Amino acid sequence: MPAEYSSHGLWIVGLGPGRSEYMTSRAVEVLSHVEYVIGNDSYLDAIEPLLEGKQVIRSSMGKEVDRAKKAIQLAQVHPVAIVSGGDAGVYGMAGIVLEVLEHEGAIIPVEIVPGVTAANAAASVVGSPLSGDFAVISLSDILTPLEVIEKRLDAVFSVGIPVVIYNPRSHGRPDNFALAMEHARKYYPPSVPIAIIKNALRNQGSDPVTTTLGEIGNCIEEIDMHTTVIIGGTESRIWRMGNNVKGIITPRGYHRKYVY
Amino acid sequence: MPAEYSSHGLWIVGLGPGRSEYMTSRAVEVLSHVEYVIGNDSYLDAIEPLLEGKQVIRSSMGKEVDRAKKAIQLAQVHPVAIVSGGDAGVYGMAGIVLEVLEHEGAIIPVEIVPGVTAANAAASVVGSPLSGDFAVISLSDILTPLEVIEKRLDAVFSVGIPVVIYNPRSHGRPDNFALAMEHARKYYPPSVPIAIIKNALRNQGSDPVTTTLGEIGNCIEEIDMHTTVIIGGTESRIWRMGNNVKGIITPRGYHRKYVY
Repeated sequence: MPAEYSSHGLWIVGLGPGRSEYMTSRAVEVLSHVEYVIGNDSYLDAIEPLLEGKQVIRSSMGKEVDRAKKAIQLAQVHPVAIVSGGDAGVYGMAGIVLEVLEHEGAIIPVEIVPGVTAANAAASVVGSPLSGDFAVISLSDILTPLEVIEKRLDAVFSVGIPVVIYNPRSHGRPDNFALAMEHARKYYPPSVPIAIIKNALRNQGSDPVTTTLGEIGNCIEEIDMHTTVIIGGTESRIWRMGNNVKGIITPRGYHRKYVY
Repeated sequence: MPAEYSSHGLWIVGLGPGRSEYMTSRAVEVLSHVEYVIGNDSYLDAIEPLLEGKQVIRSSMGKEVDRAKKAIQLAQVHPVAIVSGGDAGVYGMAGIVLEVLEHEGAIIPVEIVPGVTAANAAASVVGSPLSGDFAVISLSDILTPLEVIEKRLDAVFSVGIPVVIYNPRSHGRPDNFALAMEHARKYYPPSVPIAIIKNALRNQGSDPVTTTLGEIGNCIEEIDMHTTVIIGGTESRIWRMGNNVKGIITPRGYHRKYVY
């Protein structure tokens, strides 16, 4: 639905993991075109140099509905970008903006600009844990009941595919990650690899940690709301180079077809 | 594991969906630095202007193991990029390159540059179908047995999360998509929305089609190996603007918390 450069409308833009070098050219181009940029503080700070001369509206976490309404109201007469970290369509602003747009019956040009989502950014710093099928599950029970999240975890663990965990742990829900690990133990041996990636490809990024389900208990304190956790699947294994643990490989199955 | 700009090493680069405006700056920068670029024809054609002055090695589909070996051999003495469409870590070259690297015991600088994967690119042209938890499953049974794929489909349909289908249908496996729909019907009513996205955000992209599980039978002939299919989950619904069907919305659950 490219809205190209109409005089008004809404661009819902994914900024990628955080460092500007991981933004797409399209996202940069859209930001240079619009008059208004709306987003939450942490994402706006990361793109400060691109905001010169723009009307900037800073919003805070938990205010997504208000932010969506404001963006839609302005977009009736101005070109407006509403930004999300990662990909705007994954736990980002795209869903709520479209819900409010439909509810209000507004008819305006809309374009969603995809970005590198946290799952792919996190995977890239620990090898190739998501080489084949995988699932993405958030442990935040603010918008989804915890028992629904638990059923989803059971379903994906039961078929042995890697899972990317968003929002693994925060002050408000310190125990959801440990609970998820209890579910994993029902299906997996202690050797299944797990990677803990904090602030992947953001400026303040730290070194990722690769461990196993058996050892994860020692790492839980390091996990916070800026962390993405990748739980390997049945076929995943630790990736080493020389004596160094580098991350996780999930083979795609070439070993079943080829000798190498 | 940023390899920054060492005189030799391997950069495994995701090019995004196809149009250069959806590449990251990091991918562009890496391509300008390396001496060798290795990839399959269709991806290399898409980045032709960036290949001037490079040693280009074109490979074909099915030759991934040979391509990985060649890249590793060259990377011992040259800076080498091996490219994949989308994100290199998702059904791309990252997995097999790391497998071969480990098997050969090579110790070289390696960086994986993430890209916008087909799931996110496809979702962006049909609204917000992946707003919350989702799964990504390939229907190609070249490297994964079909019965394993069927179990994975059952597991994710049973908990009602949206699924992105890669490799839905080809000459070699014309019936896997219809089989996947049979599994969907075990769990979903005919109203569950489905989006068919061909060549999302590539130069030759065509308009996406939004339909339902009940009507999907009419669209199967349009689905080929360049198509990504998104099957909505229990909460997904058709997104309309005025009288036009625009795609799919999967609400994240704000309606359970807020009035808007």
